[in-house]
Amino acid sequence: MTHKATVLGCGLVGATMARDLAWLGEFEVTAADVKVENLRRLAGTASLKTLQTDLSNPARIREVVADADVVLGALPSSLGFATLKAVIETGKSYCDISFMVENPLDLNELAVQNGVTAVVDCGVSPGLSNLIIGHVQTKLDRAEEATIYVGGLPRTRAWPFEYQAPFSPADVIEEYVRPARMRENGRIVVKPALSEPELMIFAEVGTLEAFNTDGLRTLLQTTDIPNMREKTLRYPGHADLMRMFRETGFFDKTPIEVGGGVVRPLDVTSKLLFARWAYQPGEEEFTVLRVIVEGVRGGCRERYVYDLYDKYDRAKGISSMARTTAFPAVIVARMLAQGKIRRTGVTPPELLPREPGVFEHLIEELRERGVTVHEKAERVK
Amino acid sequence: MTHKATVLGCGLVGATMARDLAWLGEFEVTAADVKVENLRRLAGTASLKTLQTDLSNPARIREVVADADVVLGALPSSLGFATLKAVIETGKSYCDISFMVENPLDLNELAVQNGVTAVVDCGVSPGLSNLIIGHVQTKLDRAEEATIYVGGLPRTRAWPFEYQAPFSPADVIEEYVRPARMRENGRIVVKPALSEPELMIFAEVGTLEAFNTDGLRTLLQTTDIPNMREKTLRYPGHADLMRMFRETGFFDKTPIEVGGGVVRPLDVTSKLLFARWAYQPGEEEFTVLRVIVEGVRGGCRERYVYDLYDKYDRAKGISSMARTTAFPAVIVARMLAQGKIRRTGVTPPELLPREPGVFEHLIEELRERGVTVHEKAERVK
Repeated sequence: MTHKATVLGCGLVGATMARDLAWLGEFEVTAADVKVENLRRLAGTASLKTLQTDLSNPARIREVVADADVVLGALPSSLGFATLKAVIETGKSYCDISFMVENPLDLNELAVQNGVTAVVDCGVSPGLSNLIIGHVQTKLDRAEEATIYVGGLPRTRAWPFEYQAPFSPADVIEEYVRPARMRENGRIVVKPALSEPELMIFAEVGTLEAFNTDGLRTLLQTTDIPNMREKTLRYPGHADLMRMFRETGFFDKTPIEVGGGVVRPLDVTSKLLFARWAYQPGEEEFTVLRVIVEGVRGGCRERYVYDLYDKYDRAKGISSMARTTAFPAVIVARMLAQGKIRRTGVTPPELLPREPGVFEHLIEELRERGVTVHEKAERVK
Repeated sequence: MTHKATVLGCGLVGATMARDLAWLGEFEVTAADVKVENLRRLAGTASLKTLQTDLSNPARIREVVADADVVLGALPSSLGFATLKAVIETGKSYCDISFMVENPLDLNELAVQNGVTAVVDCGVSPGLSNLIIGHVQTKLDRAEEATIYVGGLPRTRAWPFEYQAPFSPADVIEEYVRPARMRENGRIVVKPALSEPELMIFAEVGTLEAFNTDGLRTLLQTTDIPNMREKTLRYPGHADLMRMFRETGFFDKTPIEVGGGVVRPLDVTSKLLFARWAYQPGEEEFTVLRVIVEGVRGGCRERYVYDLYDKYDRAKGISSMARTTAFPAVIVARMLAQGKIRRTGVTPPELLPREPGVFEHLIEELRERGVTVHEKAERVK
């Protein structure tokens, strides 16, 4: 049976979504983007047509998704919320990885009214990390602690930053500035980004440094786990430099007067870092994700550790960032098209494992794409 | 006998010169500056009058020094060379600590023609360091190596820079950017500033890091010592950050386009660092100088090590930077006024010890002001 899928936004992640869907052989895919050069990369893919259109206009969104069975979103953060709303209004199933500063759950009522399932934040973290936490919750009588460690890093460690980004430095810097919300002993606690650094050893990559960032998002609303935190992983030393930049004002958005003109320090810093942080074609990178969930089952304390290590796919030329972000969304979108997800409303990934088989199906399909999630369960004294 | 002295420029150093001269009780001092607030700090000092005037105009310089027996200079680098020339043209003895990018020795012929002695670069380093090297040269048959280590640092080490500056960050950054000229095996070698870091222990302050800077100046012209280098001292870690800033473009003077405007990254960086690097009133700082000269005398190899450690004068509220920069100039200016220096022409400090007694007199007068230079001589195997 052939379904129709529309992918909104064809940057690195959206293009990977569109191609992966087309390769399945069960979808007619429409890939939409405002940039012709983004669409050009998809030319010649079987079962895939491209559409150049301005997705910042909700009216165009509604037209583009009109005949789709399922819609996927991979848009810049500025368009995420408006697009989510527009797709919900059309009554289409949606699976989205667009970051948005707004709270997607604010649209839950609208989605329920329209009978729509809109899965949001469905990348790697947020995304797979939420799915893992939701899954362990179904096993435990009571989950008491959850910690997410996640990082995307270049294989080559180059002085001074030992970091590169497949997107604008300004988006990374935003994570270094925004205070990190977490839960401790049942209460929301806010700590500075980059705080509480800890060194951790990963078998595939050696020692990394983890520090607080604001990545829990919907988990703070949808779960009552009393201790939850999210930490970003970088090579040791990177966070020190970022703290220095931040505390000295280089990440400030308030304009300052300089040399007769006015400038935002963040804009200058982003511009200078861009030249250092941009990946060159073919440069290898990898993704590390570790999720630790602890809790009680049948009177015993248990700990679940999930580990993912994924690297650049040299054969297909797909970055690990794009793979690990796009694949969970594609797999969930396919389940939506096949009617395998019953829940309606705005659905963060941690709620999906409540439906039997969904989590196992996702892990299996990830494995088929070469993304392997290792589970280790142990009893804690 | 009373002499007349004119001090050109009354910033931190110039004001210290003017006061110290006045306190000697043998000078009528005129202190000139364009800024009223600089002159106000000198109000009420006996034997001292102030004069508000624009010293960027050479004609005004000539008027101001007309009745002086000796002139002292402590001006911004942009005014240093033109002022040196103007003072030489009036035929007055001059002792100057103004930094200038131009080569002061280019004015030597003019000074000789006018029968003028103009001692330049007469602070701590350049200045005292040159005097020490010139002095050791008079002892040795052949000086073969000379290394200068110098730094002015805050007593309190504050993250992230562990550095403060009594002048504009742009002037400090200039030293981190300008390639360092040195001599190795008789040949001029140019290395990047901040290169060849080495850790050194100083009894009074602990471990400091020394790195190449371009501080030899006239020594490269006036001496034939085959191995010479100058290194700047900072707390460990500072140079790493500065290298990172430089190599990432934060010290660039080439304007970049940012947020619709155009800005020089250096201007933004200077502005942001200024807030971090400025000394607050009463904050303690110190100066460290170590000069090592090695050579041959009577067939034996000898090493001379000179050490200076000077700190903020809390009683008088005078920074060590001002003390160690102003005092050598005041002492030499006094010798000029007393006719104790016979040499005419533009005279870098390393040439002064050729006249018997001059070096010993300077060291003794520094000691009277609380600035003690320790000499250690040893035979080297």
